Amino acid sequence: MEYVDVPPGHPRAESLRIRGKLIKHFKEGVVVAAGLIAHGRGEAFDYLLGERTTEPALKAIEAAAATLLIAKRPVISVNGNTTALALEEVVELWLELNNARIEVNLFHRSFERELAIERLLKEAGVKEVLGVGDAASASIPGVLSERRRVDPRGIFIADAVLIPLEDGDRAEALAKMGKTVIAIDLNPLSRTARSASITIVDNVVRAMPKLVKAVKKLKGSSYEELRRISFEFDNRRNLAEALRLINNRLLELAAKGVALEL
Amino acid sequence: MEYVDVPPGHPRAESLRIRGKLIKHFKEGVVVAAGLIAHGRGEAFDYLLGERTTEPALKAIEAAAATLLIAKRPVISVNGNTTALALEEVVELWLELNNARIEVNLFHRSFERELAIERLLKEAGVKEVLGVGDAASASIPGVLSERRRVDPRGIFIADAVLIPLEDGDRAEALAKMGKTVIAIDLNPLSRTARSASITIVDNVVRAMPKLVKAVKKLKGSSYEELRRISFEFDNRRNLAEALRLINNRLLELAAKGVALEL
Repeated sequence: MEYVDVPPGHPRAESLRIRGKLIKHFKEGVVVAAGLIAHGRGEAFDYLLGERTTEPALKAIEAAAATLLIAKRPVISVNGNTTALALEEVVELWLELNNARIEVNLFHRSFERELAIERLLKEAGVKEVLGVGDAASASIPGVLSERRRVDPRGIFIADAVLIPLEDGDRAEALAKMGKTVIAIDLNPLSRTARSASITIVDNVVRAMPKLVKAVKKLKGSSYEELRRISFEFDNRRNLAEALRLINNRLLELAAKGVALEL
Repeated sequence: MEYVDVPPGHPRAESLRIRGKLIKHFKEGVVVAAGLIAHGRGEAFDYLLGERTTEPALKAIEAAAATLLIAKRPVISVNGNTTALALEEVVELWLELNNARIEVNLFHRSFERELAIERLLKEAGVKEVLGVGDAASASIPGVLSERRRVDPRGIFIADAVLIPLEDGDRAEALAKMGKTVIAIDLNPLSRTARSASITIVDNVVRAMPKLVKAVKKLKGSSYEELRRISFEFDNRRNLAEALRLINNRLLELAAKGVALEL
């Protein structure tokens, strides 16, 4: 048995509730074992961020919304963990962006997993899911993993790609292809975070609903205004800000609890 | 399929090799899904520590060795992840400490898992494994999870308990029972780390062999000398030291890569 029912008032209740969601999808074959480990890594960074959406994350979310709205061929790349944690929001975002496509892209690719994820997306109202089976016939230069296989109608020709929970190799390669890469990554030091044009350093569970809200809010804005918001965003400065917050949080936690000497 | 074969020279090769070990034991029913997530959390903290055994960790290891050597009824508490990552070292430590016992204690307890772990320990030469099935007939006051169930011949009457990879609830409760708790935990801010008498902030994969070495080295020392080493150890100061290292490493990584503004 797995620990999914969380005692109310447990210090880590929300975090354990999300774990339960992930483990459920793991048992259904949507999430793989390595995805559970990757989630744990994220949990630790989220803990260091204070498990809240920070100011720099909100800035990145606004820039991401503007960038997706002005993109000609935006694609939302979906993997197992994203499906487990933010399916509804992925579909909402797709609905708000009239020209967006959703593509399945997996590191641990298997046709069964692709179909399981496609089924969940279709049940949620998505008409066509790209990148399933032979549809992923194009490849991203320089990527060796199964992540390289993409849909020629989707990620391959996209100008902007949203990659929640990504691996560094593909993030770098997509950036090299000249695409505007929007990442959601709790580790501000990861290769994904560093190589993306816009990195939202936040938990996908919190970031995705806020991204949908930001898209709704900015929809009325002029193209010039959206371009300004998108171009003025400075990812390096924003990542530095996120790191500074983690540092301060560590010092604060240390002062509260462990380490009066610090 | 799972990503277990690691390309040589991969930036995270060692970390991925350990993951492979864990996933193998997961498939064999020794490790549970939540254990994979917990491992991921550890990975992130290990990454922040620089994936090395730090000075404060070495200090804690020496104090732990001395404490285990002077203990009258030392017990090594073993769970799924510990079995997957440090089985050989657990057995070596048990052999070096003539009076130690090994007890299985699981958060996600099932008789099948207890038996799987017992079998691996016995194959490695352990005569009797405590805490299996009905043998875990005593309970730790104040613990609600399955972790409360302990062996009256083992953890229940132990004066010193080594708890690698522990949950906060039981660590606190064992300390309340007046036992000397020795924890191995990569998160210097966790309740386990805070409530233990000695916290080794290190990866169990690196810490356990060093703990065995320290026990061998200190075996010849006088009781007075061992007591001095054990009593002079200051866990709060040591945890503060570990936290300071994490902070410095963050700043260093930031300076190297992301954040020239920092």
